[in-house]
Amino acid sequence: MTPVGLIGLGIMGRPMAGHLLRAGHPLTIYNRTAGRTTELAAAGARVAGSPAEVAAAAEVILIVVTDSSDVEEVVEGARGVLSAVRPGSVVVDMSTISPATEKRLDGRLRERGACLIDAPVSGGDVGARNATLAIMAGGDPLALERVRPILERLGKSITHCGEVGSGQLAKLCNQILVGVTLLGVSEAIAFARRSGLDPEVMIRAVESGAAGSWQLSNLGPRILRGDFAPGFMVDLMQKDLRLVLETVAASGAPLPATALLRELFLSAQAHGEGRQGTQILGRVVERLSGAS
Amino acid sequence: MTPVGLIGLGIMGRPMAGHLLRAGHPLTIYNRTAGRTTELAAAGARVAGSPAEVAAAAEVILIVVTDSSDVEEVVEGARGVLSAVRPGSVVVDMSTISPATEKRLDGRLRERGACLIDAPVSGGDVGARNATLAIMAGGDPLALERVRPILERLGKSITHCGEVGSGQLAKLCNQILVGVTLLGVSEAIAFARRSGLDPEVMIRAVESGAAGSWQLSNLGPRILRGDFAPGFMVDLMQKDLRLVLETVAASGAPLPATALLRELFLSAQAHGEGRQGTQILGRVVERLSGAS
Repeated sequence: MTPVGLIGLGIMGRPMAGHLLRAGHPLTIYNRTAGRTTELAAAGARVAGSPAEVAAAAEVILIVVTDSSDVEEVVEGARGVLSAVRPGSVVVDMSTISPATEKRLDGRLRERGACLIDAPVSGGDVGARNATLAIMAGGDPLALERVRPILERLGKSITHCGEVGSGQLAKLCNQILVGVTLLGVSEAIAFARRSGLDPEVMIRAVESGAAGSWQLSNLGPRILRGDFAPGFMVDLMQKDLRLVLETVAASGAPLPATALLRELFLSAQAHGEGRQGTQILGRVVERLSGAS
Repeated sequence: MTPVGLIGLGIMGRPMAGHLLRAGHPLTIYNRTAGRTTELAAAGARVAGSPAEVAAAAEVILIVVTDSSDVEEVVEGARGVLSAVRPGSVVVDMSTISPATEKRLDGRLRERGACLIDAPVSGGDVGARNATLAIMAGGDPLALERVRPILERLGKSITHCGEVGSGQLAKLCNQILVGVTLLGVSEAIAFARRSGLDPEVMIRAVESGAAGSWQLSNLGPRILRGDFAPGFMVDLMQKDLRLVLETVAASGAPLPATALLRELFLSAQAHGEGRQGTQILGRVVERLSGAS
Protein backbone atom coordinates (compact mmCIF):
# COMPACT_ATOMS: atom_id res chain seq x y z
CA MET A 1 0.00 0.00 0.00
CA THR A 2 1.07 3.58 -0.67
CA PRO A 3 3.31 4.92 2.10
CA VAL A 4 1.60 7.99 3.52
CA GLY A 5 2.90 10.87 5.60
CA LEU A 6 0.80 13.07 7.84
CA ILE A 7 1.98 16.39 9.25
CA GLY A 8 -0.10 18.07 11.95
CA LEU A 9 -1.77 16.06 14.72
CA GLY A 10 -4.42 18.41 16.05
CA ILE A 11 -8.09 17.54 16.60
CA MET A 12 -8.42 16.95 12.85
CA GLY A 13 -5.09 15.25 12.07
CA ARG A 14 -5.07 12.71 14.88
CA PRO A 15 -8.27 10.81 14.00
CA MET A 16 -7.28 10.97 10.32
CA ALA A 17 -3.98 9.26 11.15
CA GLY A 18 -5.93 6.57 12.98
CA HIS A 19 -8.11 5.87 9.91
CA LEU A 20 -5.04 5.52 7.68
CA LEU A 21 -3.32 3.14 10.08
CA ARG A 22 -6.44 0.98 10.36
CA ALA A 23 -6.63 0.88 6.55
CA GLY A 24 -3.14 -0.63 6.55
CA HIS A 25 -1.11 2.27 5.13
CA PRO A 26 2.52 2.54 6.24
CA LEU A 27 2.28 5.91 8.01
CA THR A 28 4.95 8.42 8.98
CA ILE A 29 3.79 11.26 11.22
CA TYR A 30 5.18 14.57 12.41
CA ASN A 31 3.90 17.20 14.79
CA ARG A 32 5.59 20.47 15.76
CA THR A 33 4.71 19.88 19.40
CA ALA A 34 5.94 16.42 20.43
CA GLY A 35 3.86 14.23 22.76
CA ARG A 36 0.86 13.98 20.48
CA THR A 37 2.55 11.12 18.67
CA THR A 38 2.74 8.55 21.49
CA GLU A 39 -0.60 6.87 20.98
CA LEU A 40 -0.27 6.74 17.20
CA ALA A 41 3.27 5.38 17.51
CA ALA A 42 1.90 2.60 19.70
CA ALA A 43 -0.66 1.89 16.95
CA GLY A 44 2.12 1.46 14.38
CA ALA A 45 2.96 4.93 13.04
CA ARG A 46 6.58 5.87 12.48
CA VAL A 47 7.42 9.19 14.14
CA ALA A 48 9.61 11.55 12.08
CA GLY A 49 11.77 14.35 13.45
CA SER A 50 10.92 16.83 10.69
CA PRO A 51 8.63 17.37 7.69
CA ALA A 52 11.65 16.49 5.50
CA GLU A 53 11.81 13.05 7.09
CA VAL A 54 8.13 12.55 6.40
CA ALA A 55 8.63 13.56 2.76
CA ALA A 56 11.57 11.17 2.39
CA ALA A 57 9.47 8.25 3.66
CA ALA A 58 6.16 8.87 1.87
CA GLU A 59 4.67 9.14 -1.62
CA VAL A 60 1.59 10.99 -0.45
CA ILE A 61 2.06 13.66 2.21
CA LEU A 62 -1.00 15.05 3.99
CA ILE A 63 -0.72 18.41 5.76
CA VAL A 64 -3.34 19.27 8.40
CA VAL A 65 -2.29 22.50 10.11
CA THR A 66 -3.95 25.88 10.69
CA ASP A 67 -2.87 28.86 8.65
CA SER A 68 -0.96 29.81 5.50
CA SER A 69 2.22 30.54 7.46
CA ASP A 70 2.08 27.09 9.09
CA VAL A 71 1.86 25.36 5.71
CA GLU A 72 4.69 27.52 4.36
CA GLU A 73 6.84 26.54 7.32
CA VAL A 74 6.06 22.84 6.81
CA VAL A 75 6.81 22.96 3.09
CA GLU A 76 9.51 25.61 2.69
CA GLY A 77 11.02 25.86 6.18
CA ALA A 78 14.40 24.45 7.24
CA ARG A 79 13.99 20.64 7.02
CA GLY A 80 10.70 21.23 5.24
CA VAL A 81 8.92 18.91 2.80
CA LEU A 82 10.51 20.67 -0.18
CA SER A 83 14.04 19.75 0.88
CA ALA A 84 13.38 16.00 0.63
CA VAL A 85 10.25 15.43 -1.45
CA ARG A 86 10.53 12.59 -3.97
CA PRO A 87 9.74 13.13 -7.65
CA GLY A 88 6.20 11.87 -8.30
CA SER A 89 5.01 12.49 -4.75
CA VAL A 90 1.77 14.30 -4.12
CA VAL A 91 1.41 16.78 -1.26
CA VAL A 92 -2.22 17.10 -0.10
CA ASP A 93 -2.84 20.21 1.96
CA MET A 94 -6.03 19.75 3.97
CA SER A 95 -5.62 22.96 5.99
CA THR A 96 -7.79 25.98 5.16
CA ILE A 97 -5.36 28.59 3.87
CA SER A 98 -4.91 31.19 1.13
CA PRO A 99 -5.62 29.92 -2.43
CA ALA A 100 -2.72 32.07 -3.67
CA THR A 101 -0.30 30.37 -1.27
CA GLU A 102 -1.37 26.93 -2.56
CA LYS A 103 -0.62 28.00 -6.13
CA ARG A 104 2.80 29.27 -5.15
CA LEU A 105 3.68 26.11 -3.21
CA ASP A 106 2.47 23.91 -6.09
CA GLY A 107 4.89 25.80 -8.35
CA ARG A 108 7.79 25.12 -6.01
CA LEU A 109 6.90 21.43 -5.65
CA ARG A 110 6.64 21.07 -9.42
CA GLU A 111 10.28 22.25 -9.70
CA ARG A 112 11.07 19.10 -7.70
CA GLY A 113 8.88 16.83 -9.86
CA ALA A 114 6.14 16.67 -7.21
CA CYS A 115 2.85 18.54 -7.03
CA LEU A 116 0.22 19.84 -4.65
CA ILE A 117 -3.49 19.12 -4.21
CA ASP A 118 -5.32 21.56 -1.97
CA ALA A 119 -8.03 19.63 -0.17
CA PRO A 120 -9.64 21.57 2.69
CA VAL A 121 -12.51 19.89 4.46
CA SER A 122 -15.78 20.65 6.11
CA GLY A 123 -17.42 18.57 8.80
CA GLY A 124 -15.26 19.50 11.79
CA ASP A 125 -13.72 17.20 14.38
CA VAL A 126 -16.85 15.01 14.34
CA GLY A 127 -16.41 14.51 10.59
CA ALA A 128 -12.71 13.71 11.08
CA ARG A 129 -13.50 11.12 13.77
CA ASN A 130 -16.30 9.48 11.77
CA ALA A 131 -14.51 9.80 8.40
CA THR A 132 -17.50 11.72 7.03
CA LEU A 133 -15.64 14.87 5.96
CA ALA A 134 -16.60 16.71 2.77
CA ILE A 135 -13.33 17.23 0.90
CA MET A 136 -13.02 20.06 -1.64
CA ALA A 137 -10.03 19.37 -3.88
CA GLY A 138 -8.12 21.53 -6.34
CA GLY A 139 -5.23 20.56 -8.60
CA ASP A 140 -4.14 18.15 -11.31
CA PRO A 141 -6.96 15.60 -11.90
CA LEU A 142 -4.52 12.69 -12.33
CA ALA A 143 -2.79 13.51 -9.06
CA LEU A 144 -6.21 13.66 -7.39
CA GLU A 145 -7.13 10.22 -8.75
CA ARG A 146 -3.87 8.88 -7.34
CA VAL A 147 -4.66 10.12 -3.82
CA ARG A 148 -8.43 9.54 -3.97
CA PRO A 149 -8.30 6.04 -2.36
CA ILE A 150 -6.47 7.61 0.57
CA LEU A 151 -8.91 10.53 0.87
CA GLU A 152 -11.81 8.06 0.73
CA ARG A 153 -10.59 6.72 4.08
CA LEU A 154 -11.14 10.21 5.54
CA GLY A 155 -14.29 11.60 3.99
CA LYS A 156 -17.62 10.68 2.46
CA SER A 157 -17.48 13.10 -0.48
CA ILE A 158 -14.54 14.30 -2.55
CA THR A 159 -15.33 17.03 -5.08
CA HIS A 160 -12.79 18.12 -7.69
CA CYS A 161 -13.30 21.88 -7.89
CA GLY A 162 -10.72 22.85 -10.54
CA GLU A 163 -7.08 23.90 -10.62
CA VAL A 164 -4.81 24.26 -7.58
CA GLY A 165 -6.37 26.68 -5.09
CA SER A 166 -9.95 25.97 -6.15
CA GLY A 167 -10.50 23.62 -3.21
CA GLN A 168 -9.64 26.54 -0.95
CA LEU A 169 -11.97 28.82 -2.91
CA ALA A 170 -14.83 26.33 -2.46
CA LYS A 171 -14.03 26.09 1.26
CA LEU A 172 -14.13 29.87 1.55
CA CYS A 173 -17.53 29.88 -0.18
CA ASN A 174 -18.58 27.26 2.36
CA GLN A 175 -17.54 29.60 5.17
CA ILE A 176 -19.42 32.57 3.67
CA LEU A 177 -22.54 30.41 3.48
CA VAL A 178 -22.13 28.93 6.95
CA GLY A 179 -21.49 32.31 8.54
CA VAL A 180 -24.10 34.47 6.81
CA THR A 181 -26.77 31.79 7.24
CA LEU A 182 -25.92 31.65 10.94
CA LEU A 183 -26.25 35.43 11.10
CA GLY A 184 -29.79 35.13 9.72
CA VAL A 185 -30.54 32.46 12.33
CA SER A 186 -29.16 34.73 15.08
CA GLU A 187 -31.27 37.70 13.97
CA ALA A 188 -34.43 35.62 13.63
CA ILE A 189 -33.96 34.27 17.16
CA ALA A 190 -33.23 37.73 18.53
CA PHE A 191 -36.32 39.10 16.77
CA ALA A 192 -38.50 36.29 18.12
CA ARG A 193 -37.28 36.72 21.71
CA ARG A 194 -37.54 40.48 21.57
CA SER A 195 -41.10 40.37 20.32
CA GLY A 196 -42.37 37.69 22.69
CA LEU A 197 -42.50 34.75 20.28
CA ASP A 198 -41.15 31.42 21.58
CA PRO A 199 -38.06 30.89 19.37
CA GLU A 200 -38.32 27.11 19.70
CA VAL A 201 -41.84 27.18 18.25
CA MET A 202 -40.58 29.53 15.55
CA ILE A 203 -37.83 27.11 14.46
CA ARG A 204 -40.30 24.23 14.34
CA ALA A 205 -42.77 26.32 12.32
CA VAL A 206 -40.31 27.38 9.61
CA GLU A 207 -37.43 24.90 9.36
CA SER A 208 -39.02 22.54 6.85
CA GLY A 209 -39.68 25.29 4.29
CA ALA A 210 -37.79 27.93 2.32
CA ALA A 211 -36.25 29.28 5.54
CA GLY A 212 -34.64 25.93 6.32
CA SER A 213 -30.90 25.40 6.68
CA TRP A 214 -28.40 23.14 8.42
CA GLN A 215 -27.43 26.10 10.60
CA LEU A 216 -31.02 26.72 11.73
CA SER A 217 -31.77 23.10 12.59
CA ASN A 218 -28.40 22.31 14.17
CA LEU A 219 -27.07 25.53 15.72
CA GLY A 220 -30.42 27.27 16.35
CA PRO A 221 -31.33 24.91 19.23
CA ARG A 222 -27.82 25.31 20.71
CA ILE A 223 -28.25 29.10 20.74
CA LEU A 224 -31.58 28.64 22.55
CA ARG A 225 -29.95 26.36 25.16
CA GLY A 226 -27.00 28.75 25.61
CA ASP A 227 -24.69 25.91 24.53
CA PHE A 228 -21.70 27.68 22.98
CA ALA A 229 -19.18 24.83 23.06
CA PRO A 230 -17.32 24.48 19.75
CA GLY A 231 -18.14 22.86 17.05
CA PHE A 232 -16.13 25.32 15.09
CA MET A 233 -14.35 28.09 16.96
CA VAL A 234 -14.87 31.81 16.35
CA ASP A 235 -11.08 32.38 16.12
CA LEU A 236 -10.80 29.89 13.24
CA MET A 237 -13.84 31.32 11.49
CA GLN A 238 -12.26 34.76 11.71
CA LYS A 239 -9.10 33.40 10.08
CA ASP A 240 -11.22 32.01 7.23
CA LEU A 241 -13.20 35.24 6.81
CA ARG A 242 -9.90 37.12 6.71
CA LEU A 243 -8.86 34.81 3.84
CA VAL A 244 -12.15 35.50 2.04
CA LEU A 245 -11.78 39.25 2.30
CA GLU A 246 -8.06 39.15 1.37
CA THR A 247 -8.78 36.95 -1.63
CA VAL A 248 -11.61 39.12 -2.89
CA ALA A 249 -9.84 42.41 -2.13
CA ALA A 250 -7.50 41.72 -5.04
CA SER A 251 -10.48 41.88 -7.39
CA GLY A 252 -12.25 44.77 -5.67
CA ALA A 253 -15.54 42.92 -5.09
CA PRO A 254 -17.59 44.11 -2.08
CA LEU A 255 -19.19 41.40 0.08
CA PRO A 256 -21.17 43.47 2.58
CA ALA A 257 -22.77 40.67 4.63
CA THR A 258 -19.47 38.80 4.92
CA ALA A 259 -17.76 42.00 6.08
CA LEU A 260 -20.54 42.62 8.61
CA LEU A 261 -20.19 39.04 9.82
CA ARG A 262 -16.49 39.58 10.46
CA GLU A 263 -17.20 42.70 12.49
CA LEU A 264 -19.74 40.85 14.62
CA PHE A 265 -17.36 37.95 15.27
CA LEU A 266 -14.78 40.61 16.17
CA SER A 267 -17.22 41.73 18.85
CA ALA A 268 -17.33 38.13 20.14
CA GLN A 269 -13.52 38.12 20.26
CA ALA A 270 -13.53 41.47 22.05
CA HIS A 271 -15.77 39.86 24.70
CA GLY A 272 -13.26 37.04 25.15
CA GLU A 273 -15.40 34.54 23.22
CA GLY A 274 -12.92 33.65 20.47
CA ARG A 275 -12.68 30.03 21.60
CA GLN A 276 -16.46 29.55 21.73
CA GLY A 277 -18.37 27.93 18.88
CA THR A 278 -19.58 30.13 16.02
CA GLN A 279 -23.14 29.92 17.42
CA ILE A 280 -22.01 32.52 19.99
CA LEU A 281 -23.11 34.88 17.20
CA GLY A 282 -26.61 34.46 18.61
CA ARG A 283 -25.43 36.08 21.82
CA VAL A 284 -23.52 38.82 19.95
CA VAL A 285 -26.71 39.83 18.12
CA GLU A 286 -28.76 39.82 21.33
CA ARG A 287 -26.11 41.96 23.01
CA LEU A 288 -26.58 44.61 20.31
CA SER A 289 -29.98 45.31 21.79
CA GLY A 290 -28.74 45.64 25.35
CA ALA A 291 -29.55 42.08 26.45
CA SER A 292 -26.60 40.33 28.07
CA MET B 1 -70.25 21.69 6.41
CA THR B 2 -69.08 24.99 7.84
CA PRO B 3 -69.97 27.89 5.53
CA VAL B 4 -66.73 29.64 4.63
CA GLY B 5 -65.98 33.08 3.26
CA LEU B 6 -62.87 34.07 1.35
CA ILE B 7 -61.85 37.66 0.71
CA GLY B 8 -59.01 38.34 -1.74
CA LEU B 9 -58.66 36.32 -4.95
CA GLY B 10 -55.06 36.95 -5.98
CA ILE B 11 -52.54 34.26 -6.92
CA MET B 12 -52.84 32.87 -3.38
CA GLY B 13 -56.57 33.26 -2.73
CA ARG B 14 -57.87 31.82 -5.98
CA PRO B 15 -56.40 28.30 -5.70
CA MET B 16 -57.34 28.26 -2.00
CA ALA B 17 -60.97 28.95 -2.92
CA GLY B 18 -60.80 26.04 -5.36
CA HIS B 19 -59.62 23.65 -2.65
CA LEU B 20 -62.46 24.68 -0.33
CA LEU B 21 -65.10 24.24 -3.05
CA ARG B 22 -63.75 20.79 -3.93
CA ALA B 23 -63.89 19.87 -0.24
CA GLY B 24 -67.61 20.66 -0.31
CA HIS B 25 -67.70 23.85 1.78
CA PRO B 26 -70.45 26.37 1.00
CA LEU B 27 -68.20 29.26 -0.10
CA THR B 28 -68.88 32.97 -0.40
CA ILE B 29 -66.17 35.03 -2.11
CA TYR B 30 -65.34 38.67 -2.55
CA ASN B 31 -62.64 40.51 -4.45
CA ARG B 32 -62.09 44.26 -4.66
CA THR B 33 -61.50 44.00 -8.41
CA ALA B 34 -64.42 42.15 -9.98
CA GLY B 35 -63.86 39.67 -12.83
CA ARG B 36 -61.67 37.33 -10.84
CA THR B 37 -64.79 35.64 -9.51
CA THR B 38 -66.27 34.27 -12.76
CA GLU B 39 -64.50 30.92 -12.80
CA LEU B 40 -65.09 30.26 -9.10
CA ALA B 41 -68.78 31.26 -9.44
CA ALA B 42 -69.11 28.69 -12.22
CA ALA B 43 -67.59 26.13 -9.83
CA GLY B 44 -70.26 26.88 -7.22
CA ALA B 45 -69.04 29.85 -5.19
CA ARG B 46 -71.47 32.56 -4.23
CA VAL B 47 -70.17 36.01 -5.14
CA ALA B 48 -70.70 38.72 -2.54
CA GLY B 49 -70.80 42.46 -3.19
CA SER B 50 -68.85 43.41 -0.05
CA PRO B 51 -66.85 41.95 2.85
CA ALA B 52 -69.95 42.55 4.99
CA GLU B 53 -71.99 40.22 2.77
CA VAL B 54 -69.27 37.58 3.13
CA ALA B 55 -69.34 37.95 6.91
CA ALA B 56 -73.13 37.67 7.00
CA ALA B 57 -73.01 34.38 5.06
CA ALA B 58 -70.06 32.61 6.70
CA GLU B 59 -68.89 31.29 10.07
CA VAL B 60 -65.25 31.24 9.10
CA ILE B 61 -63.92 34.15 7.05
CA LEU B 62 -60.52 33.85 5.39
CA ILE B 63 -58.72 37.04 4.33
CA VAL B 64 -55.92 36.75 1.76
CA VAL B 65 -54.81 40.25 0.77
CA THR B 66 -51.48 42.10 0.76
CA ASP B 67 -50.78 44.70 3.40
CA SER B 68 -52.00 45.94 6.79
CA SER B 69 -54.06 48.72 5.22
CA ASP B 70 -55.83 46.21 2.93
CA VAL B 71 -56.83 44.05 5.89
CA GLU B 72 -57.99 47.12 7.81
CA GLU B 73 -60.16 48.16 4.85
CA VAL B 74 -61.65 44.66 4.59
CA VAL B 75 -62.44 44.47 8.31
CA GLU B 76 -63.15 48.05 9.38
CA GLY B 77 -64.04 49.79 6.10
CA ALA B 78 -67.52 50.79 5.02
CA ARG B 79 -69.41 47.50 4.47
CA GLY B 80 -66.49 45.72 6.10
CA VAL B 81 -66.51 42.38 7.95
CA LEU B 82 -66.97 44.11 11.30
CA SER B 83 -70.34 45.62 10.30
CA ALA B 84 -71.94 42.20 9.78
CA VAL B 85 -69.85 39.55 11.49
CA ARG B 86 -71.87 36.95 13.43
CA PRO B 87 -71.13 36.22 17.08
CA GLY B 88 -69.00 33.07 17.23
CA SER B 89 -67.45 33.55 13.81
CA VAL B 90 -63.71 33.26 13.35
CA VAL B 91 -61.82 35.59 11.00
CA VAL B 92 -58.59 33.99 9.71
CA ASP B 93 -56.18 36.52 8.26
CA MET B 94 -53.70 34.71 6.00
CA SER B 95 -52.08 37.90 4.69
CA THR B 96 -48.61 38.91 5.95
CA ILE B 97 -49.19 42.12 7.88
CA SER B 98 -48.25 43.90 11.10
CA PRO B 99 -48.61 41.80 14.29
CA ALA B 100 -49.83 44.92 16.10
CA THR B 101 -52.64 45.42 13.57
CA GLU B 102 -53.81 41.83 14.10
CA LYS B 103 -54.05 42.41 17.85
CA ARG B 104 -56.04 45.57 17.36
CA LEU B 105 -58.46 43.93 14.90
CA ASP B 106 -58.90 40.93 17.20
CA GLY B 107 -59.93 43.37 19.93
CA ARG B 108 -62.54 44.94 17.68
CA LEU B 109 -63.91 41.57 16.56
CA ARG B 110 -64.18 40.41 20.17
CA GLU B 111 -66.47 43.37 20.88
CA ARG B 112 -68.79 41.70 18.37
CA GLY B 113 -68.43 38.23 19.88
CA ALA B 114 -66.13 37.03 17.10
CA CYS B 115 -62.34 36.69 17.08
CA LEU B 116 -59.28 36.67 14.85
CA ILE B 117 -56.67 34.08 14.07
CA ASP B 118 -53.62 35.40 12.22
CA ALA B 119 -52.38 32.66 9.92
CA PRO B 120 -49.79 33.84 7.40
CA VAL B 121 -48.31 31.20 5.15
CA SER B 122 -45.08 30.27 3.47
CA GLY B 123 -44.77 28.21 0.33
CA GLY B 124 -45.84 30.77 -2.27
CA ASP B 125 -48.22 30.33 -5.18
CA VAL B 126 -46.95 26.78 -5.76
CA GLY B 127 -47.82 25.91 -2.16
CA ALA B 128 -51.26 27.47 -2.56
CA ARG B 129 -51.95 25.49 -5.75
CA ASN B 130 -50.72 22.19 -4.28
CA ALA B 131 -52.21 22.82 -0.81
CA THR B 132 -48.76 22.37 0.73
CA LEU B 133 -48.53 25.73 2.50
CA ALA B 134 -46.90 26.02 5.91
CA ILE B 135 -49.38 27.94 8.06
CA MET B 136 -48.17 29.86 11.13
CA ALA B 137 -51.14 30.59 13.36
CA GLY B 138 -51.62 32.90 16.32
CA GLY B 139 -54.68 33.34 18.53
CA ASP B 140 -57.10 31.52 20.77
CA PRO B 141 -56.30 27.77 20.68
CA LEU B 142 -59.97 26.76 20.68
CA ALA B 143 -60.73 29.05 17.75
CA LEU B 144 -57.75 27.55 15.92
CA GLU B 145 -59.06 24.02 16.53
CA ARG B 146 -62.39 25.08 15.10
CA VAL B 147 -60.83 26.31 11.83
CA ARG B 148 -58.11 23.65 11.62
CA PRO B 149 -60.11 21.26 9.39
CA ILE B 150 -60.52 24.14 6.92
CA LEU B 151 -56.85 25.14 7.07
CA GLU B 152 -55.90 21.48 6.53
CA ARG B 153 -57.44 21.78 3.06
CA LEU B 154 -54.92 24.51 2.28
CA GLY B 155 -51.61 23.54 3.87
CA LYS B 156 -49.53 20.58 4.97
CA SER B 157 -48.45 22.01 8.33
CA ILE B 158 -50.29 24.24 10.78
CA THR B 159 -48.25 25.45 13.75
CA HIS B 160 -49.86 27.26 16.67
CA CYS B 161 -47.29 29.93 17.58
CA GLY B 162 -49.00 31.64 20.53
CA GLU B 163 -51.39 34.56 21.04
CA VAL B 164 -52.85 36.74 18.28
CA GLY B 165 -50.02 38.25 16.21
CA SER B 166 -47.58 35.44 16.88
CA GLY B 167 -48.28 33.82 13.52
CA GLN B 168 -47.17 37.10 11.93
CA LEU B 169 -44.08 37.18 14.15
CA ALA B 170 -43.14 33.65 13.03
CA LYS B 171 -43.71 34.64 9.40
CA LEU B 172 -41.44 37.66 9.85
CA CYS B 173 -38.76 35.37 11.34
CA ASN B 174 -39.24 33.19 8.27
CA GLN B 175 -38.59 36.21 6.04
CA ILE B 176 -35.44 37.20 7.99
CA LEU B 177 -34.14 33.65 7.55
CA VAL B 178 -35.09 33.39 3.89
CA GLY B 179 -33.58 36.76 3.04
CA VAL B 180 -30.33 36.65 5.00
CA THR B 181 -29.65 33.07 3.89
CA LEU B 182 -30.18 34.18 0.28
CA LEU B 183 -27.74 37.03 0.86
CA GLY B 184 -25.11 34.50 1.92
CA VAL B 185 -25.86 32.46 -1.21
CA SER B 186 -25.52 35.58 -3.36
CA GLU B 187 -22.16 36.53 -1.82
CA ALA B 188 -20.78 32.99 -2.09
CA ILE B 189 -21.72 32.88 -5.78
CA ALA B 190 -20.26 36.35 -6.40
CA PHE B 191 -17.06 35.31 -4.60
CA ALA B 192 -16.80 32.09 -6.62
CA ARG B 193 -17.32 33.83 -9.97
CA ARG B 194 -14.97 36.66 -9.12
CA SER B 195 -12.19 34.30 -8.12
CA GLY B 196 -12.55 31.89 -11.05
CA LEU B 197 -14.27 29.00 -9.29
CA ASP B 198 -17.21 27.38 -11.12
CA PRO B 199 -20.18 28.29 -8.87
CA GLU B 200 -22.10 25.19 -9.96
CA VAL B 201 -19.27 22.96 -8.75
CA MET B 202 -19.14 25.02 -5.56
CA ILE B 203 -22.84 24.45 -4.80
CA ARG B 204 -22.47 20.72 -5.42
CA ALA B 205 -19.39 20.57 -3.17
CA VAL B 206 -20.96 22.28 -0.17
CA GLU B 207 -24.75 21.91 -0.22
CA SER B 208 -24.94 18.62 1.67
CA GLY B 209 -22.97 19.94 4.67
CA ALA B 210 -23.16 22.72 7.24
CA ALA B 211 -23.44 25.32 4.44
CA GLY B 212 -26.63 23.74 3.12
CA SER B 213 -29.97 25.50 2.90
CA TRP B 214 -33.20 25.49 0.91
CA GLN B 215 -32.16 28.83 -0.56
CA LEU B 216 -28.79 27.49 -1.77
CA SER B 217 -30.18 24.35 -3.39
CA ASN B 218 -33.30 25.96 -4.88
CA LEU B 219 -32.45 29.59 -5.68
CA GLY B 220 -28.66 29.18 -6.18
CA PRO B 221 -29.11 27.35 -9.51
CA ARG B 222 -31.65 29.98 -10.65
CA ILE B 223 -29.13 32.75 -9.95
CA LEU B 224 -26.56 30.84 -12.04
CA ARG B 225 -29.02 30.47 -14.95
CA GLY B 226 -30.04 34.16 -14.73
CA ASP B 227 -33.63 32.99 -14.07
CA PHE B 228 -35.15 35.80 -12.01
CA ALA B 229 -38.83 34.98 -12.51
CA PRO B 230 -40.79 35.13 -9.24
CA GLY B 231 -41.19 32.83 -6.97
CA PHE B 232 -41.56 35.55 -4.43
CA MET B 233 -41.32 39.15 -5.59
CA VAL B 234 -38.81 41.70 -4.29
CA ASP B 235 -41.59 44.28 -3.71
CA LEU B 236 -43.43 41.87 -1.39
CA MET B 237 -40.23 40.93 0.43
CA GLN B 238 -39.55 44.63 1.00
CA LYS B 239 -43.01 45.02 2.49
CA ASP B 240 -42.24 42.14 4.88
CA LEU B 241 -38.80 43.50 5.82
CA ARG B 242 -40.43 46.86 6.51
CA LEU B 243 -42.79 45.05 8.91
CA VAL B 244 -39.80 43.37 10.60
CA LEU B 245 -37.96 46.63 11.10
CA GLU B 246 -41.10 48.48 12.22
CA THR B 247 -41.96 45.72 14.67
CA VAL B 248 -38.49 45.59 16.16
CA ALA B 249 -38.01 49.37 16.14
CA ALA B 250 -40.51 49.59 19.00
CA SER B 251 -38.15 47.54 21.17
CA GLY B 252 -34.92 49.17 19.94
CA ALA B 253 -33.24 45.94 18.82
CA PRO B 254 -30.71 46.30 15.99
CA LEU B 255 -30.81 43.64 13.24
CA PRO B 256 -27.84 44.66 11.08
CA ALA B 257 -28.01 41.91 8.43
CA THR B 258 -31.77 42.37 7.98
CA ALA B 259 -31.26 46.12 7.59
CA LEU B 260 -28.46 45.53 5.06
CA LEU B 261 -30.72 43.13 3.19
CA ARG B 262 -33.40 45.77 2.90
CA GLU B 263 -30.90 48.27 1.49
CA LEU B 264 -29.75 45.76 -1.13
CA PHE B 265 -33.32 44.94 -2.18
CA LEU B 266 -33.84 48.71 -2.37
CA SER B 267 -31.04 48.73 -4.94
CA ALA B 268 -32.93 46.07 -6.93
CA GLN B 269 -36.05 48.25 -6.80
CA ALA B 270 -34.01 51.27 -7.89
CA HIS B 271 -32.93 49.22 -10.92
CA GLY B 272 -36.58 48.49 -11.79
CA GLU B 273 -36.37 44.92 -10.52
CA GLY B 274 -39.08 45.08 -7.84
CA ARG B 275 -41.27 42.55 -9.65
CA GLN B 276 -38.45 40.04 -10.11
CA GLY B 277 -38.00 37.10 -7.76
CA THR B 278 -35.94 37.60 -4.61
CA GLN B 279 -33.05 35.68 -6.23
CA ILE B 280 -32.32 38.90 -8.16
CA LEU B 281 -30.25 39.59 -5.03
CA GLY B 282 -27.52 37.53 -6.73
CA ARG B 283 -27.36 40.14 -9.46
CA VAL B 284 -27.48 43.03 -6.97
CA VAL B 285 -24.41 41.66 -5.19
CA GLU B 286 -22.53 41.11 -8.45
CA ARG B 287 -23.37 44.64 -9.52
CA LEU B 288 -21.65 45.97 -6.39
CA SER B 289 -18.38 44.87 -7.92
CA GLY B 290 -18.98 46.56 -11.26
CA ALA B 291 -20.25 43.47 -13.11
CA SER B 292 -23.57 44.06 -14.85
